[in-house]
Amino acid sequence: CKNPAWVQANDFSFSGLHNPGNTGNPFGSAITPVTVAQIPALNTLGISLVRIDYAPWGVVVPHYHPRATEIITVIEGSLEVGFVTSNPDNRLISKTLQKGDVFVFPVGLVHFQRNVGHMNAVTISGLNSQNPGVITIGNAVFGSKPDISTDILAKAFQVDKNIVQQIQGKF
Amino acid sequence: CKNPAWVQANDFSFSGLHNPGNTGNPFGSAITPVTVAQIPALNTLGISLVRIDYAPWGVVVPHYHPRATEIITVIEGSLEVGFVTSNPDNRLISKTLQKGDVFVFPVGLVHFQRNVGHMNAVTISGLNSQNPGVITIGNAVFGSKPDISTDILAKAFQVDKNIVQQIQGKF
Amino acid sequence: CKNPAWVQANDFSFSGLHNPGNTGNPFGSAITPVTVAQIPALNTLGISLVRIDYAPWGVVVPHYHPRATEIITVIEGSLEVGFVTSNPDNRLISKTLQKGDVFVFPVGLVHFQRNVGHMNAVTISGLNSQNPGVITIGNAVFGSKPDISTDILAKAFQVDKNIVQQIQGKF
Amino acid sequence: CKNPAWVQANDFSFSGLHNPGNTGNPFGSAITPVTVAQIPALNTLGISLVRIDYAPWGVVVPHYHPRATEIITVIEGSLEVGFVTSNPDNRLISKTLQKGDVFVFPVGLVHFQRNVGHMNAVTISGLNSQNPGVITIGNAVFGSKPDISTDILAKAFQVDKNIVQQIQGKF
Amino acid sequence: CKNPAWVQANDFSFSGLHNPGNTGNPFGSAITPVTVAQIPALNTLGISLVRIDYAPWGVVVPHYHPRATEIITVIEGSLEVGFVTSNPDNRLISKTLQKGDVFVFPVGLVHFQRNVGHMNAVTISGLNSQNPGVITIGNAVFGSKPDISTDILAKAFQVDKNIVQQIQGKF
Amino acid sequence: CKNPAWVQANDFSFSGLHNPGNTGNPFGSAITPVTVAQIPALNTLGISLVRIDYAPWGVVVPHYHPRATEIITVIEGSLEVGFVTSNPDNRLISKTLQKGDVFVFPVGLVHFQRNVGHMNAVTISGLNSQNPGVITIGNAVFGSKPDISTDILAKAFQVDKNIVQQIQGKF
Repeated sequence: CKNPAWVQANDFSFSGLHNPGNTGNPFGSAITPVTVAQIPALNTLGISLVRIDYAPWGVVVPHYHPRATEIITVIEGSLEVGFVTSNPDNRLISKTLQKGDVFVFPVGLVHFQRNVGHMNAVTISGLNSQNPGVITIGNAVFGSKPDISTDILAKAFQVDKNIVQQIQGKF
Repeated sequence: CKNPAWVQANDFSFSGLHNPGNTGNPFGSAITPVTVAQIPALNTLGISLVRIDYAPWGVVVPHYHPRATEIITVIEGSLEVGFVTSNPDNRLISKTLQKGDVFVFPVGLVHFQRNVGHMNAVTISGLNSQNPGVITIGNAVFGSKPDISTDILAKAFQVDKNIVQQIQGKF
Repeated sequence: CKNPAWVQANDFSFSGLHNPGNTGNPFGSAITPVTVAQIPALNTLGISLVRIDYAPWGVVVPHYHPRATEIITVIEGSLEVGFVTSNPDNRLISKTLQKGDVFVFPVGLVHFQRNVGHMNAVTISGLNSQNPGVITIGNAVFGSKPDISTDILAKAFQVDKNIVQQIQGKF
Repeated sequence: CKNPAWVQANDFSFSGLHNPGNTGNPFGSAITPVTVAQIPALNTLGISLVRIDYAPWGVVVPHYHPRATEIITVIEGSLEVGFVTSNPDNRLISKTLQKGDVFVFPVGLVHFQRNVGHMNAVTISGLNSQNPGVITIGNAVFGSKPDISTDILAKAFQVDKNIVQQIQGKF
Repeated sequence: CKNPAWVQANDFSFSGLHNPGNTGNPFGSAITPVTVAQIPALNTLGISLVRIDYAPWGVVVPHYHPRATEIITVIEGSLEVGFVTSNPDNRLISKTLQKGDVFVFPVGLVHFQRNVGHMNAVTISGLNSQNPGVITIGNAVFGSKPDISTDILAKAFQVDKNIVQQIQGKF
Repeated sequence: CKNPAWVQANDFSFSGLHNPGNTGNPFGSAITPVTVAQIPALNTLGISLVRIDYAPWGVVVPHYHPRATEIITVIEGSLEVGFVTSNPDNRLISKTLQKGDVFVFPVGLVHFQRNVGHMNAVTISGLNSQNPGVITIGNAVFGSKPDISTDILAKAFQVDKNIVQQIQGKF
């Protein structure tokens, strides 16, 4: 921590959740994190927050946080949310949430959210790391730099290599 | 965890943040926690959430969480928030927050919130424990069962015993 | 722990890594774990081991361990291994390993192995959890029970829904 | 840690608990800590020690340690000790200790000690942090710099503002 | 923890450090621990205490605590204390302590104490585990049940097997 | 971690387990560690690996790792392995392992290995620390620099001082 003589309220605050994020992108969602990158005083404190805006039918595509459990609550709108348990069960645990509902994505599990209403939606989540990390499945598997060998992915997803290449071409 | 065959979405969700809490009390605030007590699946996951409603000038009186840092964001209204650093500095770090602002109360430090507007206010906080605990200074010091000896508190606050007894009588 | 009077050497041992696993499957690999499921005394001790056998060109498809870093060494053969860093970089860090080489897969990152030789290969890995967990990307994303909505996956991978359904059909 | 060539016994020792501390103050107690500030080699080792001297009827006023449980033993004299459990119970758990008695103050709970004999008393405590921190309730709540708003404290302790100001004036 | 309705002060206290332990044994020392075995409420709290009495020239023979750092202070007498650093340096860090001196034995390192005066000595130590464990080198290496093979110990200490057997016979 | 732009596969790999270590020493064993000293990227990742070669009847003498549990598997040959539980039981838990067997040495406990066959043996172990540390009993107790006082060791092992000095002379 800084020398107490230099601790100031601004070191512990952030003013960036006032306005909706820009959802004009292929996913129709906008993620505004408040982690140690936005509030350096969060270092070692083990907590962060994120606001997510969703256009109608906007999606936060399957991803996971290697260092945090996420607890999400709906501020506006209604959302389908879900996570998948680990091997060997791979059960999808999903639910449609209304405004005021709360859901938990356990640490390290693949999860997603989708706006299932015709209006914008907003969520606030708490995550128990100041630096939770995000691994988006599509980007990690089909969009790595350089690409993972096509035939590894063809075996992984049991499809022809040209389909793998087609997906890799989108990232 | 339960046997995977029995894991269900309801085990990971809670539907209690839809309506404002009842702020018709001397403090003018209402605290609605979502901890392991509300979502048993949070056990060992190290995260919880709380919604707080504030009537105009409503207060969450000085308290601390022995097991969690709190990150708070204002959903509606404007609030004065602050925490006090530990000995020997005891610096008050405070700020007035508007809708969309975020602030951090580091683990174990005394903090408070006050609605400084003429309308209701609402906050959502994340805390990095499924069971953060709450110790309200007034209740712990003047309202314990049985009471702490009057002369200990008279020395602690450097006042006459009758003032201590007067405060103890309120709890 | 058990009463010391009952602690026996067999509680701390396992005899299952003698023979190659059966690689006669679509992936051409066989995974033989030694975790708390095989040695109950590993509970709380934070370590496990795994032997993997690879037929020529056999693959361990992209997966991750939510609770463990893996350190792998090649006992026989030569392997291509790699992992992908988290957002926003998604860099593929890969290398071809020979017998006696060692590589690290950091906790929570997607990684894979592939036998790049014409003979069988064998690896031994240590993982720093008695219960590291395995999440295989293909199974979690395309093989969950029930399926993740086709249109979420279509958006995630930027492909037509019929390709998503084709892949889902393989799991 | 330092380079082993430079590790010396003095890095691991401290010679400051020989004499009674000066109890000539309003509380009649003197606290002599042995933490990472006195022995830098304690860094990361998670332990510290404190000697406390008490004049007759001397008090260690209500305080807590945000990062440590304290185990205390009486070397000389007899003491009343107590701690208060968290919300909603706020139970006072207290006991009079004689020379050779041991008591535990769980991490983060408000506690106090008072010499209940006519002779000086001495205690030694172990705390499970090299930097346990001390938050003295009076100083944090009524003695912060700057002051917490008078009306917040008036609500917190359910007293008139002039009593709050009177107490604030003592700190 | 127990139900708060049942928490009592006696659950947090122990009354066994009043009298000197019996030092009438070959080592001339007596160890009186206060761990989770004496105070069950210490469970999960991560701290314990130990009083040690030493007859003139009494010794606490080389041992280590696998789960705790120890901070020791001399209440009466004067002591030689020391610990040995790990491979490859194996440096002995030792010091003669007088009443009021404090010393640290880092977690897991072999250490010892010896009364170097003609009067009895007393120490109090804090250890940062409720169950620190004790492994006495002599007992573990030469006194195990059953014995470690004589030729392993002969190689370990580079002595004849008959000397190993002679030492084993003493345990 | 390094800036992602600079992360390279070589930072996560090590090429030193290809050849047998040199067992031409009094113990007949050779230890080749792969810890944070060999792979700096292991820092904070909590895992390491070690290859050990054993000449016929070669021994790894009694030692312990203060910061790691070890899980060992036999790649070639057959070995007697064992560890000793802590006070007061000091039970030897030992077993003869064949190729493909796995055994666990719990963190902080004294353990050893011995080749019990007429051919060379090889083991691979995983340890759950990037820096597990090694304390070899003989070196720590009889080979420290400077020596532990002869009479302390004479009391510890209940032998004449001249035997202690004889052993100390070997280290």
